[in-house]
Amino acid sequence: MDKLKLIHDMAVDNGTKIVLLVMDGLGGLPMTPGGKTALEAAHTPNMDALTARASLGLSTVVAQGFSPGSGPGHLALFGYDPLENLIGRGVLEALGIGFHLQPTDVAIRCNFCTVDENGNITDRRAGRIPTDEAAKRVALLRQIKIPGVEIFVEPVKEYRFAVVLRGEGLSGDIEDTDPQLTGVPILPITPRTAAAEKTAAILREFVAQGEKILAGHPPANAFTLRGVAMDPGLPKFPDVYKIKSAAVAVYPMYKGVSRLVGMDVIEHDAESPAEEFAVVKKHWDEYDFFFVHIKKTDSYGEDGNFDARKGVIEAVDAALPDLLALNPDVLVITGDHSTPAAVKRHSWHPVPVLLAANTVRRETATEFGETACLHGSLGYIHHTDIMPLALAHALRLGKYGA
Amino acid sequence: MDKLKLIHDMAVDNGTKIVLLVMDGLGGLPMTPGGKTALEAAHTPNMDALTARASLGLSTVVAQGFSPGSGPGHLALFGYDPLENLIGRGVLEALGIGFHLQPTDVAIRCNFCTVDENGNITDRRAGRIPTDEAAKRVALLRQIKIPGVEIFVEPVKEYRFAVVLRGEGLSGDIEDTDPQLTGVPILPITPRTAAAEKTAAILREFVAQGEKILAGHPPANAFTLRGVAMDPGLPKFPDVYKIKSAAVAVYPMYKGVSRLVGMDVIEHDAESPAEEFAVVKKHWDEYDFFFVHIKKTDSYGEDGNFDARKGVIEAVDAALPDLLALNPDVLVITGDHSTPAAVKRHSWHPVPVLLAANTVRRETATEFGETACLHGSLGYIHHTDIMPLALAHALRLGKYGA
Repeated sequence: MDKLKLIHDMAVDNGTKIVLLVMDGLGGLPMTPGGKTALEAAHTPNMDALTARASLGLSTVVAQGFSPGSGPGHLALFGYDPLENLIGRGVLEALGIGFHLQPTDVAIRCNFCTVDENGNITDRRAGRIPTDEAAKRVALLRQIKIPGVEIFVEPVKEYRFAVVLRGEGLSGDIEDTDPQLTGVPILPITPRTAAAEKTAAILREFVAQGEKILAGHPPANAFTLRGVAMDPGLPKFPDVYKIKSAAVAVYPMYKGVSRLVGMDVIEHDAESPAEEFAVVKKHWDEYDFFFVHIKKTDSYGEDGNFDARKGVIEAVDAALPDLLALNPDVLVITGDHSTPAAVKRHSWHPVPVLLAANTVRRETATEFGETACLHGSLGYIHHTDIMPLALAHALRLGKYGA
Repeated sequence: MDKLKLIHDMAVDNGTKIVLLVMDGLGGLPMTPGGKTALEAAHTPNMDALTARASLGLSTVVAQGFSPGSGPGHLALFGYDPLENLIGRGVLEALGIGFHLQPTDVAIRCNFCTVDENGNITDRRAGRIPTDEAAKRVALLRQIKIPGVEIFVEPVKEYRFAVVLRGEGLSGDIEDTDPQLTGVPILPITPRTAAAEKTAAILREFVAQGEKILAGHPPANAFTLRGVAMDPGLPKFPDVYKIKSAAVAVYPMYKGVSRLVGMDVIEHDAESPAEEFAVVKKHWDEYDFFFVHIKKTDSYGEDGNFDARKGVIEAVDAALPDLLALNPDVLVITGDHSTPAAVKRHSWHPVPVLLAANTVRRETATEFGETACLHGSLGYIHHTDIMPLALAHALRLGKYGA
């Protein structure tokens, strides 16, 4: 955390305003060799015009060749080194369903599975039972009471559900119980430290009671625990950067990650980019930093739908004048990773970055796209550089050293 | 080694195939200011055509300004941080003569030298005696027997020879005995740790017996010990990356380094690039990763022979269709460092990299060369990024974090 400490020491609150506009999975690939990416193929006159007063660059999110998950991608965007800080899988699962996690809660991602009469796993995903079938079993598991701890059991999707333990002296230092194989038993609950023994005992009791309840309900007659974790206790974004900060996001996961780093999360009914920008406008005077998250660029990338991805980028561009009309001192447009439709997954390719401010050098590029960014005046940066650069361009960072 | 651990955890064996084609010392300089490098001057239609489906970049092998030796160059190529990991000089010397080093062996690079009647060094290289003269003395040294340890004495070149100790409880933690000066005695054998005392005692005995044998054979009437070292015990390449790996190289040193990281070394009689590619073809179905090493680009660079260097690059290019016909999922063409004919030595200049795969962005360059690489879509990378990038482009790396 040394670099964040340095940045904190240099930060001043001068009232300037920054917008970090994140199109999830923005970086792309051509569908055929030598072709254009979705961002390049999209008609984006407003972003292109911004290049006249912006710096472009490409950014590595974690490390060359690493395809970031949503957790590392957003930690990096927010300036936290994603190799030093990791949000546990259980915590992400809880955030993803909008669960308001408290700092001392332990969150666990659970998978319903099928075991045979000998206790050996025959299906690690319980035949991918439908979400509503899983919800019925979750309701049954909610009956479990263990003294001294509050237990939340929440459905997620299909065979996945989340458990949150709330109480005193809990720990997330517990091994997964999913052996990642069939034909073998579920692994015993094993604490990694002595401090986790109490939590392990609670989970053993929870699993014992749960398996008794589920015994009569195949195929989901047992469950495994994965990614037992607590809030990583990151330094809070508004404190580190001395900036009053809010998140505008549609999906629970991104609201959750924002909450985890201490941003205010603005509740709203917006869905489209234009509607999200209207939320920013409505709260413009209350905050100096807005993280605005657009989800669908990633979703359509994972679907392999190049044209729909392009359409989302065009919708963002069409609505952009509303955001520009607010006159942010710094506007950064980027993504949390690449999700090329060509590979239908998060990828390792560097992410295009546009940083508009009054303090940029002459930019030779005249459009916002991966190829243009390669030769942009921002150069090749790392995602954890984005926040220091945004603050600097907003004149919010003083001198380093005398 | 944390990063290798992360890569290991993300790695999947999906059966895709990667070829890492290394032209030793590939990076060059123009012979006159503003001129072309050997790679740029060479007629390379096949590599140039590859740019239509490749990413180009420049890569720093160790750090800016550092001219890498063969050891660090290849460690970096294989993904091991060359600032954290070093192959000892004694080990490299043994690998260079094709000695099959075992993990508990201690290898030492020795120099014949001349000492006067007072034991002071008068020539640190024994008048650079010819290799065959040195070989006669090596044969004499082979008579030395010390209980509890097996001793190998091997000629290398001119005044250089190698000694390998094989036995129980040996250590490489011993100081050099070469004072790097004349007019002073050879330094005493000094262990750096208590655990090295046994090895030091063996070496003192070896030196005492050796000097008695050599006394009548000036100018090589003594010898110094340099770079006493053991196998650094690196994590094994095929285990780290979960890929069945083979090396095709002509020179013993590169076979040795490959063996050191756990690759299979394919024995063959190939000499030319075309013959080496034929070896790859013959074993194509047995492995998913091939390290192919071309030596002469470096040798001619050290000779200052620009045209011969260019000729080797052209021979590689002419044979390239044979390699491309195998349809590797990823082909990387690069070097282990630069060896410009203009400076006749390994240099610190960044090394051109071409990575051909179906998952690259549009490349604006149309030829493979240092200047084109400077503006390539791969950007400016580090040599330890090459393996993660190759694996990623072969879709062999999953997500980092959820």
